[in-house]
Amino acid sequence: MTGFLPPFTPSGKTALVPEMPWYYSGTLLTVEYRTDPANVRALLPPELDLAPEDPGAVAFIWADWQSCSTGGAELLDPARSQYLEAFAVVRCAYEGVTYSRCVLIWVTTDFAIGRGIYQGYPKKLGSIHMTRAMNHGKAAPRVEAGAQFGASLAAYDHRLATARWTLEAPAESNGFVNGHAMLHHRVVPSLDPAQEQNSLWQLVTMGGVEADLGTPWRAKAELNLFDSPWDEPAALLPVDEIIAGYYREVGVTFNGGRLIADKSNKV
Amino acid sequence: MTGFLPPFTPSGKTALVPEMPWYYSGTLLTVEYRTDPANVRALLPPELDLAPEDPGAVAFIWADWQSCSTGGAELLDPARSQYLEAFAVVRCAYEGVTYSRCVLIWVTTDFAIGRGIYQGYPKKLGSIHMTRAMNHGKAAPRVEAGAQFGASLAAYDHRLATARWTLEAPAESNGFVNGHAMLHHRVVPSLDPAQEQNSLWQLVTMGGVEADLGTPWRAKAELNLFDSPWDEPAALLPVDEIIAGYYREVGVTFNGGRLIADKSNKV
Amino acid sequence: MTGFLPPFTPSGKTALVPEMPWYYSGTLLTVEYRTDPANVRALLPPELDLAPEDPGAVAFIWADWQSCSTGGAELLDPARSQYLEAFAVVRCAYEGVTYSRCVLIWVTTDFAIGRGIYQGYPKKLGSIHMTRAMNHGKAAPRVEAGAQFGASLAAYDHRLATARWTLEAPAESNGFVNGHAMLHHRVVPSLDPAQEQNSLWQLVTMGGVEADLGTPWRAKAELNLFDSPWDEPAALLPVDEIIAGYYREVGVTFNGGRLIADKSNKV
Amino acid sequence: MTGFLPPFTPSGKTALVPEMPWYYSGTLLTVEYRTDPANVRALLPPELDLAPEDPGAVAFIWADWQSCSTGGAELLDPARSQYLEAFAVVRCAYEGVTYSRCVLIWVTTDFAIGRGIYQGYPKKLGSIHMTRAMNHGKAAPRVEAGAQFGASLAAYDHRLATARWTLEAPAESNGFVNGHAMLHHRVVPSLDPAQEQNSLWQLVTMGGVEADLGTPWRAKAELNLFDSPWDEPAALLPVDEIIAGYYREVGVTFNGGRLIADKSNKV
Repeated sequence: MTGFLPPFTPSGKTALVPEMPWYYSGTLLTVEYRTDPANVRALLPPELDLAPEDPGAVAFIWADWQSCSTGGAELLDPARSQYLEAFAVVRCAYEGVTYSRCVLIWVTTDFAIGRGIYQGYPKKLGSIHMTRAMNHGKAAPRVEAGAQFGASLAAYDHRLATARWTLEAPAESNGFVNGHAMLHHRVVPSLDPAQEQNSLWQLVTMGGVEADLGTPWRAKAELNLFDSPWDEPAALLPVDEIIAGYYREVGVTFNGGRLIADKSNKV
Repeated sequence: MTGFLPPFTPSGKTALVPEMPWYYSGTLLTVEYRTDPANVRALLPPELDLAPEDPGAVAFIWADWQSCSTGGAELLDPARSQYLEAFAVVRCAYEGVTYSRCVLIWVTTDFAIGRGIYQGYPKKLGSIHMTRAMNHGKAAPRVEAGAQFGASLAAYDHRLATARWTLEAPAESNGFVNGHAMLHHRVVPSLDPAQEQNSLWQLVTMGGVEADLGTPWRAKAELNLFDSPWDEPAALLPVDEIIAGYYREVGVTFNGGRLIADKSNKV
Repeated sequence: MTGFLPPFTPSGKTALVPEMPWYYSGTLLTVEYRTDPANVRALLPPELDLAPEDPGAVAFIWADWQSCSTGGAELLDPARSQYLEAFAVVRCAYEGVTYSRCVLIWVTTDFAIGRGIYQGYPKKLGSIHMTRAMNHGKAAPRVEAGAQFGASLAAYDHRLATARWTLEAPAESNGFVNGHAMLHHRVVPSLDPAQEQNSLWQLVTMGGVEADLGTPWRAKAELNLFDSPWDEPAALLPVDEIIAGYYREVGVTFNGGRLIADKSNKV
Repeated sequence: MTGFLPPFTPSGKTALVPEMPWYYSGTLLTVEYRTDPANVRALLPPELDLAPEDPGAVAFIWADWQSCSTGGAELLDPARSQYLEAFAVVRCAYEGVTYSRCVLIWVTTDFAIGRGIYQGYPKKLGSIHMTRAMNHGKAAPRVEAGAQFGASLAAYDHRLATARWTLEAPAESNGFVNGHAMLHHRVVPSLDPAQEQNSLWQLVTMGGVEADLGTPWRAKAELNLFDSPWDEPAALLPVDEIIAGYYREVGVTFNGGRLIADKSNKV
């Protein structure tokens, strides 16, 4: 039986996620802002420290993706290829190195959730929309100064985030918060009350390769966060001060990461 | 009370569809093919004739739209702006003039259905996906020779159409079937069994204005149609011979049409 | 070509809505409340009056339906049969007779929208959920005193209504606001700016037949309404005072209505 | 930071899945059939054997659930509580004991996927519909001889399964294939190519408790399976012979399982 993630079958083609590498093409709309560093601290497990500089910085990012595996078959049945995500990234430090870390994330497809389990992104499903730039007509911005974009996130029919951007000028980057290698935990609790808590507990780092990056644009940005009984972005990471907004088209490849620490239960 | 389509309210902002003009930006993926002209004839009401030339030509078109009304507020809450559609267009003749006519169409949002009622497009909901060209990364084609695109249509969880395109070269147009003014019927049956059949029965023509058209690309194309208990594109318009495929980015505005004939019941 | 609503085809089976009669089985969760009668007045066209008694009464109703046409084929492909709706009903008077009137309504399927166009219900799509009573296990109420139910409505990823019920005792009815024959307008504006405003403008009345009604239960109820850029139930019909909540399982048949007045444009 | 499954937060309320126990109320529609035992064998990992009796028996089950955790808050925001699933169960033997084992499963919500990761159910998202029995009206069967039910499963807009049942008579059980304790693998591959394959590899067993079961009904049943590029139920578990169909309303609680073997990589 083969397959990258269950279900495993003789052909492997039923697997929730195919073998790496995974290729991504998409557009990112980012709002970077500052919250009280205590809010970031409260979302970091004890073995991680706040980043030494600007420790309350947060990036709230919307991404509109196509993705595929080797051969690109998913691209020709695009229901299997296209998805959106919205996610909150903070920075942290571990053994003196600064990392980026995704602390909240919503996606629109199951294969994206499966990759999240594998990579330590704490993924849930959401309904996500982002304005798209197009080349023709009056119902889409071009990528140019003054262009306006909007984005939304909802889960369980509760609106959780609404954002707007007005592009200003090309920039050097699309922010600094999501610019480090990622530092994530991969955690699966024990099924058996007789066992210790976590059957899987790993600290891992990873990053994209083969980056093919478009020109970043800096933007004036607004971000409004809302809570529901099931999600609490506004309570966890309230917006104190907007740093900047960004638009960027990107391509990237993911091909695995590196294990830093493993405290999985031993039987 | 105001509003373009119900519900009507004092502010008008609850209306299913706002006032015209309506602006569109999007991408069209088209497969033109020939079916037996008898199949087209069977989908035309008796007052219409087959087109004099190539009467069995059909265009099956996928469209990935953003749309908005004056002011563009929909673009900043893109759940209200973005939708896809898949539709079959044939040609017909009326009083010696050749028209295009949409005979089957599925869309992904309610406001698109509302516009369809108004315009005489026989809209139903579907789940629709189209590969998108992007500028970066390995998970999207560029708009260039050899680029591959796929598209799908399903309704009530039955797959109805699957198509593929491989771009060949820039072309003069994106086909001829959907190139005329549209000739549609607007029909609402009587609610009252004591009345004659149709409370609304109009023959109308319309077309887009302010066309802002990208370079069309000709493509090698495949199209597979399937039936369900509720939809029958394969039975109604089977594919005998592919003419060509096309890719084109477009912008257009809709601002009303013209009444040709009215046989609505008189009280 | 046949079919009840477009698209029309030789077989008729592609029609958005099949021929009447239409059969319904489902469960209704209702909150009746009072708003300022001026709010109801503002949603009535000038030819209608407020109801003479309790003119500010509103019923906000959630319904969880299966429906089918003669033969019941839809029930065996339940994606075609099941849907939910949430709607606001007020009362009005016309020529001395009191009617019920649906002023806002959201549904989850296209065929329900199609029936709404036909019947003058101003339908839009929404995402709708209702707690269900079940006979076994701890994750569902039974229909009994103390049973708790919840319901929600969202559109374009904005939460518009949240309600809760705690059943108290069997009752005589499930309210009085939605208890009259319906009085609706069927309106389709002109496509042609050279024509007068409304190609279809009818005042119609209708009601269900073959009612097969379960025992109504009275409930303590809460209702919270919210607005979005596209919907405004809280602004249009704010809750001043809860009258009562209700739970009722029902069956009903719809088989047409009666034309009261027709001001459709004549050519 | 607390929470049963990521994301972990100080309040824990953002967790994809809350703490056990998890309560379920719902309805099961089952088709039991025989396939060639070699098909079942091909879906079992080498450490498992075929069941000694009727080794080619398969149960294809649709379930329409409400579920909640302690306190039942999910039931009052039913978008968080309701979901459907469709799944294929076979039997297997391990160290002389016969178990049930879910080899394919699709669900409609993220929290159900999260529970699947935890329990070793190989969950993917699907679109799932089941006819519901209701007490009133002509658009729903009652639970009685002759009642007809249908069900469907689709994923990525490909129909994967269609089934129909006609109830015959109350029965002793709703089948034998899903009647044992479950035997599942919990597998998460390594993120780090320098590590051995599986960071988590556990063989676990589990079962529901506090069963509150309705009367099972035996049914005449049909099952049609279909494949897509991403799912292959028809190729993996083709139907040779229908054994029987079943309808049953059930309640059950899940509160953990037992670890049988652990071959997770050790660092």
